[in-house]
Amino acid sequence: MRFTSERRLDDGVLERGFTLGEIPGILWTPSPASAPAPLILLGHPGGLHAMYPRLAARARRSAADGFAAAAIELPGSGDRPRSAAAERARADLQRALEAGEPVDDEIVDRLVLPLVEKAVPEWRAALDALLPLPGIGGPVGYSGGVISIGIRLAAVEPRISAAVLFAGSFVPRTLFEEARRVTIPLHVLLQWDDEWNDRQAALELFDAFGSREKTLHANMGGHTGVPRFAGEAAARFLTRHLS
Amino acid sequence: MRFTSERRLDDGVLERGFTLGEIPGILWTPSPASAPAPLILLGHPGGLHAMYPRLAARARRSAADGFAAAAIELPGSGDRPRSAAAERARADLQRALEAGEPVDDEIVDRLVLPLVEKAVPEWRAALDALLPLPGIGGPVGYSGGVISIGIRLAAVEPRISAAVLFAGSFVPRTLFEEARRVTIPLHVLLQWDDEWNDRQAALELFDAFGSREKTLHANMGGHTGVPRFAGEAAARFLTRHLS
Repeated sequence: MRFTSERRLDDGVLERGFTLGEIPGILWTPSPASAPAPLILLGHPGGLHAMYPRLAARARRSAADGFAAAAIELPGSGDRPRSAAAERARADLQRALEAGEPVDDEIVDRLVLPLVEKAVPEWRAALDALLPLPGIGGPVGYSGGVISIGIRLAAVEPRISAAVLFAGSFVPRTLFEEARRVTIPLHVLLQWDDEWNDRQAALELFDAFGSREKTLHANMGGHTGVPRFAGEAAARFLTRHLS
Repeated sequence: MRFTSERRLDDGVLERGFTLGEIPGILWTPSPASAPAPLILLGHPGGLHAMYPRLAARARRSAADGFAAAAIELPGSGDRPRSAAAERARADLQRALEAGEPVDDEIVDRLVLPLVEKAVPEWRAALDALLPLPGIGGPVGYSGGVISIGIRLAAVEPRISAAVLFAGSFVPRTLFEEARRVTIPLHVLLQWDDEWNDRQAALELFDAFGSREKTLHANMGGHTGVPRFAGEAAARFLTRHLS
């Protein structure tokens, strides 16, 4: 891992750009970092640059709660090489949604499974690189989408202690099986009228998770309309489990 | 309304028993009551005496947040005269649940509709009596079950500004129509494995509410297993809307 930039935000948060091999990322650490800060991995749909304002806002909120936060670019997003197969799958999904047709499992599999296969080892490698840094320590959380990445990470990565999962994307059926093996505390956010999601499938997925503590917070509005109070509830969940 | 008892709890909350005609009730007011306190109506399944410990705990939490709280006995519960028809309906429901059979709409209608018809005017009469009392003022909330009573109250009683509804009882289909006319902010609690409830119907009911702000909090466990953090989230909702 190599740091490529560093600046201090007005609230004292240290924001550092980094690369992990070919993968760009951003690390935010609270300041002054008296005790080592637990780390929250900020899940997102891809495109670090376009997502920056929302990621930075979430990171600053996390820092105010005493947490470090990090995000890495997803495979096929931002400046990373595109996958022709993923682009075709995305176009097929878009066509189905625009036509108001049900979305074939086969399209979802083509779009999401290769992404999960590539992204999860990258997030784990990021953990390997970030956790030894001075100022970072303690339990790790995952917060955000892509929910399929969060499911796989929660199922296979023992360093993740709790997760906020945003049920805002289509989930391959095979991930429902993996969800049964997830046992960490979960806080699932569902936008009731999310145009990029299948509500019934999201409810089935919530049911499938093996965790003894799991909470579903469903709110009105579309994909990007998560109410402020819902974000605060998610932050309280992370504070409860990572502090 | 006539006060029948009065005592000061150890946290300074004033607890007063009262009767409203034939209906017993309890009023809790925070102390010292500097400004008039908004009132929360504490919904419950009936049986003030048996429910007392849980009601008092909720009232004390409300008082700590600056709210007065009140509960009245439900028709056919506690020392109030039983309804033979309601007792038959309750036995039929119990039989269906114990046999693992689907619960007929007809049983739910027989059990719940007469209760709603009687209880809602009683709650409204309680409001008439309680709101002019010194120390009480501002918006009114409803919090708890029986959810069908909460739906009707939220639909017809303009003095109620926000409601926490506990989706822990069977709801007559006709109340789903009334739910569409509810427009106040709602916070719906659902115990995912509630043995006294139909999860799918609860999700449909949540969908039916006409409110622009409505949140569903679903948690693991049975009817009585609402986690402590879920109670706190409900209290925060009321504080947000009634303070």
